[in-house]
Amino acid sequence: MRGHPPLTPDELARACAEAMAATDLASREMGIELQAVGPGRATTRMRVAATMANGHGMCHGGFVFLLADTAFAYACNTYGDVTVASGCDIVFAVTAHEGDELTAEAVERARFGRNGIYDVSVRRSDGELIAEMRGRSRTTAGKILS
Amino acid sequence: MRGHPPLTPDELARACAEAMAATDLASREMGIELQAVGPGRATTRMRVAATMANGHGMCHGGFVFLLADTAFAYACNTYGDVTVASGCDIVFAVTAHEGDELTAEAVERARFGRNGIYDVSVRRSDGELIAEMRGRSRTTAGKILS
Amino acid sequence: MRGHPPLTPDELARACAEAMAATDLASREMGIELQAVGPGRATTRMRVAATMANGHGMCHGGFVFLLADTAFAYACNTYGDVTVASGCDIVFAVTAHEGDELTAEAVERARFGRNGIYDVSVRRSDGELIAEMRGRSRTTAGKILS
Amino acid sequence: MRGHPPLTPDELARACAEAMAATDLASREMGIELQAVGPGRATTRMRVAATMANGHGMCHGGFVFLLADTAFAYACNTYGDVTVASGCDIVFAVTAHEGDELTAEAVERARFGRNGIYDVSVRRSDGELIAEMRGRSRTTAGKILS
Repeated sequence: MRGHPPLTPDELARACAEAMAATDLASREMGIELQAVGPGRATTRMRVAATMANGHGMCHGGFVFLLADTAFAYACNTYGDVTVASGCDIVFAVTAHEGDELTAEAVERARFGRNGIYDVSVRRSDGELIAEMRGRSRTTAGKILS
Repeated sequence: MRGHPPLTPDELARACAEAMAATDLASREMGIELQAVGPGRATTRMRVAATMANGHGMCHGGFVFLLADTAFAYACNTYGDVTVASGCDIVFAVTAHEGDELTAEAVERARFGRNGIYDVSVRRSDGELIAEMRGRSRTTAGKILS
Repeated sequence: MRGHPPLTPDELARACAEAMAATDLASREMGIELQAVGPGRATTRMRVAATMANGHGMCHGGFVFLLADTAFAYACNTYGDVTVASGCDIVFAVTAHEGDELTAEAVERARFGRNGIYDVSVRRSDGELIAEMRGRSRTTAGKILS
Repeated sequence: MRGHPPLTPDELARACAEAMAATDLASREMGIELQAVGPGRATTRMRVAATMANGHGMCHGGFVFLLADTAFAYACNTYGDVTVASGCDIVFAVTAHEGDELTAEAVERARFGRNGIYDVSVRRSDGELIAEMRGRSRTTAGKILS
């Protein structure tokens, strides 16, 4: 990026997200959209498809995790360094159902050394809490924009 | 099931798994197979598809979770009572890649009151550890076989 | 409490905290002080004693947990119902040392059914993050004030 | 240790434990005893003192954590490298009471890179499960025996 003025934190966050989204087939396949991104923050959205539910229309918790994990991945990769998930804890509050519109909002809680902690709340469109995830990240030596 | 001799624990576990599998569209869609099931135990298998990976062929951690969570769900539902995940913690050890054959083995660690703890190890076909999940379950009043 | 006007949420939180503190020998023994309490919130403070550290003056993580867990216990017991910890996850950021003044601030993140989630940040007096705990609570049928 | 034959894994584990115990004032203060240690394993024991309980004789969960965390610390420091806890998740099963004899048995589940996962079961002397902890460790560059 020689010859260009340095990016602002917001511009860097968006550039990182665009670079990640360009190769993120998995999220696209699941119909996960990135709604917003900023330094240490990201929001994703997904509609619970019939293929994510059991015969009773109840969404498999794994897809709720997938949505939350995607928000977490975007949020922790907004500073330019390739950052990976070292672990996550998720608490399931209410079961989501086929057709529900879910939003996952990831917010950075702390960074220390190469580690980060991100809180992700998954809510239904009426505001009902579906799940709370806490992600633990670890920054690698790689750069997202190169 | 009046008029029939009671099921053995192994028969009950298999009957519960069959009842769950019959409505589990999500796992089928992901290509997740149930390999083995017994009282408090279950093993699932999945091949990492291109749609589960990013442009560099690295598998999204969410699909590793999904595989582990499916093994957990089968394992904690082997006693006849409808049992749900109240939460899970996953630690990611090594990144899986497109084409990898992954196996998740869920084993019950403890049950107390209506709660259960299940340990799930996800491994690649060469035995390499991919992730370790610990699931927390809660038994409801519902019955799987009715 | 017949014949008295109902307590405000803040008064109820303080009354619950006083009732708990009256029997909480453990925290007193450890020199843990309750600094502030309100509905779904509590702050505790502790000085790292020589007996909490190893020969190199490094505080045993268990005492950091104890401080955080005490803030969590007060915070989730501010509504009048006896509430217990069902589990906790703690991430250690920086090692505390003998003589450090530590503060744990517990804030409610969510409540659903009989369950609650509380985030607890432990900081040194200069603001350095020592640990982040997330507590999972469960409300029982008991009443704190009776 | 030049001039000496190399230690066996069991001898190394015991030597590391002795070096740690020599400076571990905190555990001694709490009456925590190391009962057994081997490569990737350790067992600790503690009697619930009156000062660890509330006025109803119920043991503060933080002391159960402390016992489990001590077993975890010994278990992950049996290979010669200074290893620290990066985090822990604990699930509380049954409340311990004043006078209970508790045993925490820590067993290594996995090691990958500089990371380790240890499972710790805390039981009462009659075998009743009190808590299950999972510890996450990280190896540093330091050596325990030097």
